[in-house]
Amino acid sequence: MEKTRYEIGLEKLAEVDGRQGDRVIQSLKELAPDLGKFIIEFAFGDIYTRPALDLKQRECVTLSSLAVLGGTENQLRVHINGALNVGVTPEEVIEVFIQCIPYVGFPRVLNAVSVAKEVFKSRKIIQ
Amino acid sequence: MEKTRYEIGLEKLAEVDGRQGDRVIQSLKELAPDLGKFIIEFAFGDIYTRPALDLKQRECVTLSSLAVLGGTENQLRVHINGALNVGVTPEEVIEVFIQCIPYVGFPRVLNAVSVAKEVFKSRKIIQ
Amino acid sequence: MEKTRYEIGLEKLAEVDGRQGDRVIQSLKELAPDLGKFIIEFAFGDIYTRPALDLKQRECVTLSSLAVLGGTENQLRVHINGALNVGVTPEEVIEVFIQCIPYVGFPRVLNAVSVAKEVFKSRKIIQ
Amino acid sequence: MEKTRYEIGLEKLAEVDGRQGDRVIQSLKELAPDLGKFIIEFAFGDIYTRPALDLKQRECVTLSSLAVLGGTENQLRVHINGALNVGVTPEEVIEVFIQCIPYVGFPRVLNAVSVAKEVFKSRKIIQ
Amino acid sequence: MEKTRYEIGLEKLAEVDGRQGDRVIQSLKELAPDLGKFIIEFAFGDIYTRPALDLKQRECVTLSSLAVLGGTENQLRVHINGALNVGVTPEEVIEVFIQCIPYVGFPRVLNAVSVAKEVFKSRKIIQ
Amino acid sequence: MEKTRYEIGLEKLAEVDGRQGDRVIQSLKELAPDLGKFIIEFAFGDIYTRPALDLKQRECVTLSSLAVLGGTENQLRVHINGALNVGVTPEEVIEVFIQCIPYVGFPRVLNAVSVAKEVFKSRKIIQ
Repeated sequence: MEKTRYEIGLEKLAEVDGRQGDRVIQSLKELAPDLGKFIIEFAFGDIYTRPALDLKQRECVTLSSLAVLGGTENQLRVHINGALNVGVTPEEVIEVFIQCIPYVGFPRVLNAVSVAKEVFKSRKIIQ
Repeated sequence: MEKTRYEIGLEKLAEVDGRQGDRVIQSLKELAPDLGKFIIEFAFGDIYTRPALDLKQRECVTLSSLAVLGGTENQLRVHINGALNVGVTPEEVIEVFIQCIPYVGFPRVLNAVSVAKEVFKSRKIIQ
Repeated sequence: MEKTRYEIGLEKLAEVDGRQGDRVIQSLKELAPDLGKFIIEFAFGDIYTRPALDLKQRECVTLSSLAVLGGTENQLRVHINGALNVGVTPEEVIEVFIQCIPYVGFPRVLNAVSVAKEVFKSRKIIQ
Repeated sequence: MEKTRYEIGLEKLAEVDGRQGDRVIQSLKELAPDLGKFIIEFAFGDIYTRPALDLKQRECVTLSSLAVLGGTENQLRVHINGALNVGVTPEEVIEVFIQCIPYVGFPRVLNAVSVAKEVFKSRKIIQ
Repeated sequence: MEKTRYEIGLEKLAEVDGRQGDRVIQSLKELAPDLGKFIIEFAFGDIYTRPALDLKQRECVTLSSLAVLGGTENQLRVHINGALNVGVTPEEVIEVFIQCIPYVGFPRVLNAVSVAKEVFKSRKIIQ
Repeated sequence: MEKTRYEIGLEKLAEVDGRQGDRVIQSLKELAPDLGKFIIEFAFGDIYTRPALDLKQRECVTLSSLAVLGGTENQLRVHINGALNVGVTPEEVIEVFIQCIPYVGFPRVLNAVSVAKEVFKSRKIIQ
């Protein structure tokens, strides 16, 4: 029997974000359950599963999108973890942010690097 | 004799953007020559030459940054060409933009895809 | 037999945007057909069909979102038409934009009103 | 005797935001009293009192504007309360944010819903 | 007899923007006359007339605000003219934009400089 | 012997930001030392040292850029201090933010004024 978009998305979410993403979905359960459903079905079920880019490339695009957007500390936390989970190296995470400097300036990049620092500490990548 | 940051940047600019980038620099000559100099020295001399990410990865980050930022049609035109010049496929260009949808919504992505369409036509990738 | 999300979305798109939305989808056919599919399935099939807000309320939220976002002239053109199609009055369209002034300032609102002017002319609402 | 714009705005502010808005104005008293005066006179005296949209509609436009803008947690807190004060239901508040997803993506909407959750808890709408 | 806010604002608008600003107000006459009234009364009557900063300083702040905001080509055109009208030199206009680079990156600054180039040509400052 | 861009930038950073800026650079030492180097060499070495605008004017442009950008509380804290260090008065700091209202609305300005309040307290300018 064919998997639903929800099941496909849930598997992809687990692959990328592990427990972090699950916590976001759980926190939406009472108030806005459909918002969690859309993230799973559409973002992870429809988009992340597409060919043409692998998961490492997708997470690098996501990191730069979130850094440029700004005010996305919570989402950066989830996706810096996600990037590391799928094999992006810590050095590459930082370098994605540095590559954004010419296009968006230092403040957005400093904010993103500051979230990276926190995530790297929690994963004992740095002290 | 060691190359200057300007010379290094100019070579990198030529490698990435070919004539397109050169036209941007030329157009700044009379009014704001230092702006062109900063783009060459800092963006291309200091940033694009760094290790950790190759030019294809850098251009993908640039494309998503510009798409998310919005109001960057001129810069997208230069860097969609740049991405193709360094080996990003047309399919990957479109996919980078599609990966931005969950983070920035449809309008920014539609605008970026519309510039891609124009660039792909001018390069005879599509009719 | 149950309608697919695509069929549901296509009906909703026709109800809201008429031919304008269809033109956007057609223009994506060759280069990024899935982008058009996502707009129909997700935006119109999943979101616009939800209860709690009627179509007039949804279009007012859309108009303010697009005005605040900026750089969305093409999308404003589609959705100012959409708003009028579902019964938002021209006066209400303008008033939605005026209500945004305290939160986003005059330039974004002037740009949105300028698109409204063009749409109202094309529909002979004003001369 | 005719009311001043300040008096008209103060009444409208009380109607919409109750004590929350007043606290914002008070906090500006020492450092930037004119900023508080402009919010009362212009935003609430000139804009919120206009016809064509009622207060519920105005607050829905405000909520979507603030959600799309991002980095506006303090203002969302005031206006989610304001929206509930003038009769927007909790379900409608959430739905306004969900309607923004196609135009601005998930992160801005997740941030807004997270402020709504906090406000709904403080008003005992949810536990 | 005391001048109204409208009269005060109109004088200030004439002082800063000359005919350009007037054209913006005229273009709003039929569709959104109150929007023009708010620009005159609030922006020019209430804000531009305040002490603490002179008109040159105010226009420099305006130029950087518009450059950073993006998607504001029409407003930049008005205010680059306005800045020159009140005594900001062409060199200072460009330098305000260059000072924004570290905070907002090259694309926003390139777009602003490109409007400056057009204005300087129309005023025969450059050829 | 000629000073390097790094030395020139470091002197300028000390002149503008004193210890605050140094703390930002230190915090980048382990994780992204080149990011700190670019801020010193490019932002402070190349840009802040240019003629045409003095340091007070540059800091006013910086303050409005950061206020308009949003999500820049950390950078505003550094540069409100920087502005005061180079002779911008507290009244002028607030007035720069007030001048941004017509272009970017109240929320961004309220956020910036709120950081100013905190900085002014820490410097005992207000209680």
